[in-house]
Amino acid sequence: MAIRRNKITVVGAGFTGATTALMLAQKELGDVVLVDIPQLENPTKGKALDMMESTPVQGIDSKIIGTSNYEDTKDSSVVIITAGIARKPGMSRDDLVNTNAGIVKSVCENIKATSPDAYVIILSNPVDAMTFVAYQSLGFPKNRVIGQSGVLDTARYCTFIAEELNVSTEDVRGFVLGGHGDDMVPLVRYSNVGGIPIEKLIPADRIEAIVQRTRVGGGEIVNLLGNGSAYYAPAASLVQMTEAILKDKKRILPVIALLEGEYGYNNLFMGVPVILGGDGIERIFELELSAEEKEALQKSANSVRGVIAIVNGGNTGA
Amino acid sequence: MAIRRNKITVVGAGFTGATTALMLAQKELGDVVLVDIPQLENPTKGKALDMMESTPVQGIDSKIIGTSNYEDTKDSSVVIITAGIARKPGMSRDDLVNTNAGIVKSVCENIKATSPDAYVIILSNPVDAMTFVAYQSLGFPKNRVIGQSGVLDTARYCTFIAEELNVSTEDVRGFVLGGHGDDMVPLVRYSNVGGIPIEKLIPADRIEAIVQRTRVGGGEIVNLLGNGSAYYAPAASLVQMTEAILKDKKRILPVIALLEGEYGYNNLFMGVPVILGGDGIERIFELELSAEEKEALQKSANSVRGVIAIVNGGNTGA
Amino acid sequence: MAIRRNKITVVGAGFTGATTALMLAQKELGDVVLVDIPQLENPTKGKALDMMESTPVQGIDSKIIGTSNYEDTKDSSVVIITAGIARKPGMSRDDLVNTNAGIVKSVCENIKATSPDAYVIILSNPVDAMTFVAYQSLGFPKNRVIGQSGVLDTARYCTFIAEELNVSTEDVRGFVLGGHGDDMVPLVRYSNVGGIPIEKLIPADRIEAIVQRTRVGGGEIVNLLGNGSAYYAPAASLVQMTEAILKDKKRILPVIALLEGEYGYNNLFMGVPVILGGDGIERIFELELSAEEKEALQKSANSVRGVIAIVNGGNTGA
Amino acid sequence: MAIRRNKITVVGAGFTGATTALMLAQKELGDVVLVDIPQLENPTKGKALDMMESTPVQGIDSKIIGTSNYEDTKDSSVVIITAGIARKPGMSRDDLVNTNAGIVKSVCENIKATSPDAYVIILSNPVDAMTFVAYQSLGFPKNRVIGQSGVLDTARYCTFIAEELNVSTEDVRGFVLGGHGDDMVPLVRYSNVGGIPIEKLIPADRIEAIVQRTRVGGGEIVNLLGNGSAYYAPAASLVQMTEAILKDKKRILPVIALLEGEYGYNNLFMGVPVILGGDGIERIFELELSAEEKEALQKSANSVRGVIAIVNGGNTGA
Repeated sequence: MAIRRNKITVVGAGFTGATTALMLAQKELGDVVLVDIPQLENPTKGKALDMMESTPVQGIDSKIIGTSNYEDTKDSSVVIITAGIARKPGMSRDDLVNTNAGIVKSVCENIKATSPDAYVIILSNPVDAMTFVAYQSLGFPKNRVIGQSGVLDTARYCTFIAEELNVSTEDVRGFVLGGHGDDMVPLVRYSNVGGIPIEKLIPADRIEAIVQRTRVGGGEIVNLLGNGSAYYAPAASLVQMTEAILKDKKRILPVIALLEGEYGYNNLFMGVPVILGGDGIERIFELELSAEEKEALQKSANSVRGVIAIVNGGNTGA
Repeated sequence: MAIRRNKITVVGAGFTGATTALMLAQKELGDVVLVDIPQLENPTKGKALDMMESTPVQGIDSKIIGTSNYEDTKDSSVVIITAGIARKPGMSRDDLVNTNAGIVKSVCENIKATSPDAYVIILSNPVDAMTFVAYQSLGFPKNRVIGQSGVLDTARYCTFIAEELNVSTEDVRGFVLGGHGDDMVPLVRYSNVGGIPIEKLIPADRIEAIVQRTRVGGGEIVNLLGNGSAYYAPAASLVQMTEAILKDKKRILPVIALLEGEYGYNNLFMGVPVILGGDGIERIFELELSAEEKEALQKSANSVRGVIAIVNGGNTGA
Repeated sequence: MAIRRNKITVVGAGFTGATTALMLAQKELGDVVLVDIPQLENPTKGKALDMMESTPVQGIDSKIIGTSNYEDTKDSSVVIITAGIARKPGMSRDDLVNTNAGIVKSVCENIKATSPDAYVIILSNPVDAMTFVAYQSLGFPKNRVIGQSGVLDTARYCTFIAEELNVSTEDVRGFVLGGHGDDMVPLVRYSNVGGIPIEKLIPADRIEAIVQRTRVGGGEIVNLLGNGSAYYAPAASLVQMTEAILKDKKRILPVIALLEGEYGYNNLFMGVPVILGGDGIERIFELELSAEEKEALQKSANSVRGVIAIVNGGNTGA
Repeated sequence: MAIRRNKITVVGAGFTGATTALMLAQKELGDVVLVDIPQLENPTKGKALDMMESTPVQGIDSKIIGTSNYEDTKDSSVVIITAGIARKPGMSRDDLVNTNAGIVKSVCENIKATSPDAYVIILSNPVDAMTFVAYQSLGFPKNRVIGQSGVLDTARYCTFIAEELNVSTEDVRGFVLGGHGDDMVPLVRYSNVGGIPIEKLIPADRIEAIVQRTRVGGGEIVNLLGNGSAYYAPAASLVQMTEAILKDKKRILPVIALLEGEYGYNNLFMGVPVILGGDGIERIFELELSAEEKEALQKSANSVRGVIAIVNGGNTGA
């Protein structure tokens, strides 16, 4: 039988989507299709062509194409959804949520039609709720619908710890539970540097400062950029998840997964540690939580349900 | 003696500069300093921090910082200059040249003061002339002042050949001489695929179409993007050159070098094949050219002299 | 559908086979099964376990197992055959050929039964003839039976050219046609450094010396080692071919392929340039040869036929 | 200033030394000099040449040479000592220790003369004692004399944990303190998978079995091979340490370091967690130990002192 490369589709050719496409190609995880709306077809093609022209110097053997036609994404192994708008001044939160829900639904209908066997990774904001929307629209089994938030949060958390101790990021292992943003629950107990618990190495007040900086990590970048939000670390996070699936790596990563009883929640997408491999989400780890951690997780869950209620016209899914 | 990482400075935190910083870090060629003007300090810091936060997931051990202070670039091994403006509607060519010459001079004065031993790679446009400007401002020996154009042109040329034959870009070897843009001189005779001359594999009219597409390769991207120009392939080209120097690889690459008698030219920066290694430009190869190729090169040289005349108030340097 | 890693089987756990297994794992091309005869089961398991224990420090996610049971190789995508004995003092060439033909036949029967869809790469000596033996035993279509010799010969040739000019091996492109050993036909005309023909850069007598050294390259290593033959470069060559297939790279490489009319030969396995990709040998390039090159190729063909006659009891296959 | 590659010397061209040289080259950490005794000069040259001939296909730009002349190792940045004999049947432990001590001393005198600024990594057995011998012979500051044992032990430990849970080795973090072999002290408390303590994921009896298997991990390979001992994982461990130094990575790794008060020991080389970077051993971490762990460490220390007493004619260094 002929051996063919995996096809990976990235929906949304903005900074995050384009950077994701680049990093996927750099790892030769497959051929990459960057897709955006017809009005943006030319810039999408332009970015893809520019990347393609970098492959000889980068020593990469991946094809990257830009398109607005979902036929080109047919039979993708993995689809990554970065589409969606950012909140504009004067826009209500409900408007943002409903607009992005509409975009995600529309994208998912296309994916469902062209790549019914794909694993789907969602980044669109607010991500916990949008993963739920994607799950409903796609009708795919839960192991194939995966939201990104914890990998990015953890990456920031580990960056700050490595900087604090001036050690290699390779040796820092952090852990973030729950929702994205203010609701995230960094598990300090489970964070270590080369196996040594960070509580043995960093004073409590500095750990607290790191945790707090992680919580507002996205906002820190937004404030610095002045116009736009982070895309390098988000893209790298999406690529790590894609690699875990396509190489059947069975990585242990925090992702947004459908909970059906785990941690006492049902019918809720929330950030939890899982095994991510060739079957997508292969296992959810249930960690013992302290009373404080449980409370933080509950707050996070409420927050997610609140957003879902907006999309579902008041129905929280609970 | 303590072993310290190389420091690499990228001047200009636009798309090309930022993408170059990312790719340098990905290859762990050293710690990267991304520098731009004080008015852009925050976005520059934001991009660097975002990249830095991607390092744990990318498995990279490079530091990336953003700054507007040249003190932070002190003792860089390599400095890459991407600074400069793009031509705006209504702007004369002379205005563009003089504006960018001013920017390059100012940057070079800073580099001269803080990194007097650096190898300097110039991308700013029009690149042949700006490399000349940098050479004059820096006062560095000629082996340490290197312009980028041929690596990018060749990358595009090879991409199109690989696409034409549906073969791996790894096996395509092209060769572009002379100036950037319309003046470039692709040496079809020296182009091959897996060692096989492309003239044996591709019909003449298709080769001609590929050569022509290469000549206007930058414009093709500009037209598609609608707003802005290529940055992925340019960044990758700058990184390949940097790697050749920092790893003392002695790569054979087409770069913009000071000619002092080679090909019959003097005191002119033009694209020629060189050995690029730990001493920068270690050797210039003089190829035998056909009458036609000589003529094309002459045209290219005239074009470069024309731009230099603008900067030098009529003096072509000849 | 669940995504599973490719399985790659390496037959023969000697130095070449074991080094091949290591390099396959390092590139994460799939999970690796190292198989040898039951008498060597324990050392085979030991080597595989030792490699496996290196994976955490190497950052590799491939499984490597050692076995003597072909059931463990079931459904391999690629099978690499390194099995066979070396010529011992006092052993006639016919004895060597017949012994190795027996080994290759026996291995191929196992492969046919357990991995009927595999691409099979043969290294066993004398390799042109053993590829023919494998082809007969397997009954697989010709695109899936591939012998290694030219990649290794070319690697040596390029190493010597790079050393002669003190340039990066990345920029050297050589080309070797015909049989392995004394019969190989290095095509100097098609050899270049960064696109520049080597005849422009290296004096004729030095080129001749390099060609001659390439011809006896295997012997040079044998003489130095004193006991045994080369395995690092052979292993790397096998891995390059495997990667071309598993990543559908469509590399242009010299491999031993079944000729059916190409170059005027029929029913003969000989080294020619091909496209190697996801369908195995996808295309054979027919180069125009000079009278001298044709003669050298004929000598090479005669040599291969001579060996096949030994295996086939006098029948050369012609 | 011209940029030159680092030079890395590997002393001992046996399986471990040769495999180390290969892996150093694969990572392009520098040019590699493989050195052995004059009687083995030819095989050493043969292995180096074979590796060198693999570089074009591996896409590596490192030079590898074999020699018996320490002049060729001059000004190495890092020297790795793998030299020494294995215990032969009938050989007393004292004979082994004294023979290897003699070899290490002789090697160190050469290094001291030719590479006085080098960082030196010792693998020769028994490694804790041989690191002490090297320290005495070299007269280098303690940060530049580093023994390997914990990286290898940890690699094995992590391999077994990853296998037990069927997860990626990337997510397993283990920790081994103290001496090599039976005396090692795996710190189960500090072992985790993706941040989750292994005690939450693996039953106690299985953890105990993994710890025990780790302790005899070297012996397991010896028994399987029948003739010889492990070299893939040891080589990979040496390379990881070398990379940490040459890239100034500031990795947190368990290495054999000179204790001067840490953990209550003085003038003793023993396996402890350190920061390994561009200054070699930059910091020793002192972990709080349980009574049981302290006892195990004491046993380990006694064992090391016992071996040192052999070398020093009864003087334990205490």
